[in-house]
Amino acid sequence: MSAPKNIEVCLSPELLHLYEVKGKTVVVADILRATSCMVTAFAHGASTIKPFADLEECKAAATEGYETSGERNGVKVEGFDRGNSPFEYTGEDIRGKKIAFTTTNGTQAIDKSKKAKHLLIGSFLNVSAVAQRVEELNESVLVVCAGWKGRFNLEDTLFAGALIDRLKNTFKSDDDAALAAVSLYTETKQDLVSFLNKSSHVQRLNRLNIHEDMAFCVQEDTYSVVPYLEGDFLFI
Amino acid sequence: MSAPKNIEVCLSPELLHLYEVKGKTVVVADILRATSCMVTAFAHGASTIKPFADLEECKAAATEGYETSGERNGVKVEGFDRGNSPFEYTGEDIRGKKIAFTTTNGTQAIDKSKKAKHLLIGSFLNVSAVAQRVEELNESVLVVCAGWKGRFNLEDTLFAGALIDRLKNTFKSDDDAALAAVSLYTETKQDLVSFLNKSSHVQRLNRLNIHEDMAFCVQEDTYSVVPYLEGDFLFI
Repeated sequence: MSAPKNIEVCLSPELLHLYEVKGKTVVVADILRATSCMVTAFAHGASTIKPFADLEECKAAATEGYETSGERNGVKVEGFDRGNSPFEYTGEDIRGKKIAFTTTNGTQAIDKSKKAKHLLIGSFLNVSAVAQRVEELNESVLVVCAGWKGRFNLEDTLFAGALIDRLKNTFKSDDDAALAAVSLYTETKQDLVSFLNKSSHVQRLNRLNIHEDMAFCVQEDTYSVVPYLEGDFLFI
Repeated sequence: MSAPKNIEVCLSPELLHLYEVKGKTVVVADILRATSCMVTAFAHGASTIKPFADLEECKAAATEGYETSGERNGVKVEGFDRGNSPFEYTGEDIRGKKIAFTTTNGTQAIDKSKKAKHLLIGSFLNVSAVAQRVEELNESVLVVCAGWKGRFNLEDTLFAGALIDRLKNTFKSDDDAALAAVSLYTETKQDLVSFLNKSSHVQRLNRLNIHEDMAFCVQEDTYSVVPYLEGDFLFI
């Protein structure tokens, strides 16, 4: 039996240059709310999502048969078909749609992680399915937390902890950020909502129905889809 | 009564550009082992420490009446008078000495934080004294964790938690990194040594008597000195 592969956690895209991405399975997480929305959209039948770091490029995709989705600074982009609440991705009208998606943090993190061997989209909503896929792929893992404009955030770190907790018997993780993430998750998993209500992101977005979105986004294993990147597109 | 000032935590010098330093009290922490050594040296009578980011500049200070101290990659620099174990700073021979100090992480973090209104050197060894000084200065606070070569580390983050825990009645901290730091500290403070034994830094430095150094460096409030930066020099 070969030695277990390693899991590391990159707490912000601003630290990504310190990590090796090539050859690894990278799991990108932007819990509030980009990757939660993406998982929800695929679970409800979206055919593909094309993530864009650049807002104008995303807008331009509307002329190529894409619905446009996303936000800047937590607010839906004017003229876009959908914003960044997962409840906008649960209807029948999402079925078969091609979606161009851009967000403040999540799609930037995807863009920076493109050299990975495998790139998966993670959220609490599909965390056990992601863990299973990570085990099947059997490469070293880097969890990339999208953070908030380059800063650390709690919700993405807690997701990293939730994922590592599920992989503790099959992978090793002695990286300090991984240890911190697991410790924080283990301590707070009984009531993630209360803990996250203190977070700066929730405080910042208080006006934007963030509490309903958050209660939805911290549900574990609602869905079993695992979006993965092929070229410039996410599929399941 | 005015509103309480804020505390934020910068988890790595690589994230420092995302924070405002000017006008603030910055507390730099490199628990294993630069700032712990500095505090120990002052507690035992050192007259001043001149921190250097650059190794060659630090070496050159030997010609100006300085003892040279520090490490690269955890190992004492060849030809230096002292390395980076706090036990090298507890003897009578430290009294009155001027020390030129350079380390892999700690002195880099000091260098990057020089625009602060006040710059203090923090460690578990003087954490309550730092908290008291921070209260007296009554400016917003940024704790700068030195990390390890730009990455997050546990011990500096736990120090940030210990400091914030002491300031919880006089300062506010709603920044996510601060919430994580306090949560980790609260959860592990009964046995910091066991928790830190898992950390990557301790694993990495296992060969270098790190366990003795660590047991020393996580002692809270052994000393009451608070080194602060004036120009290019640290004094108490």
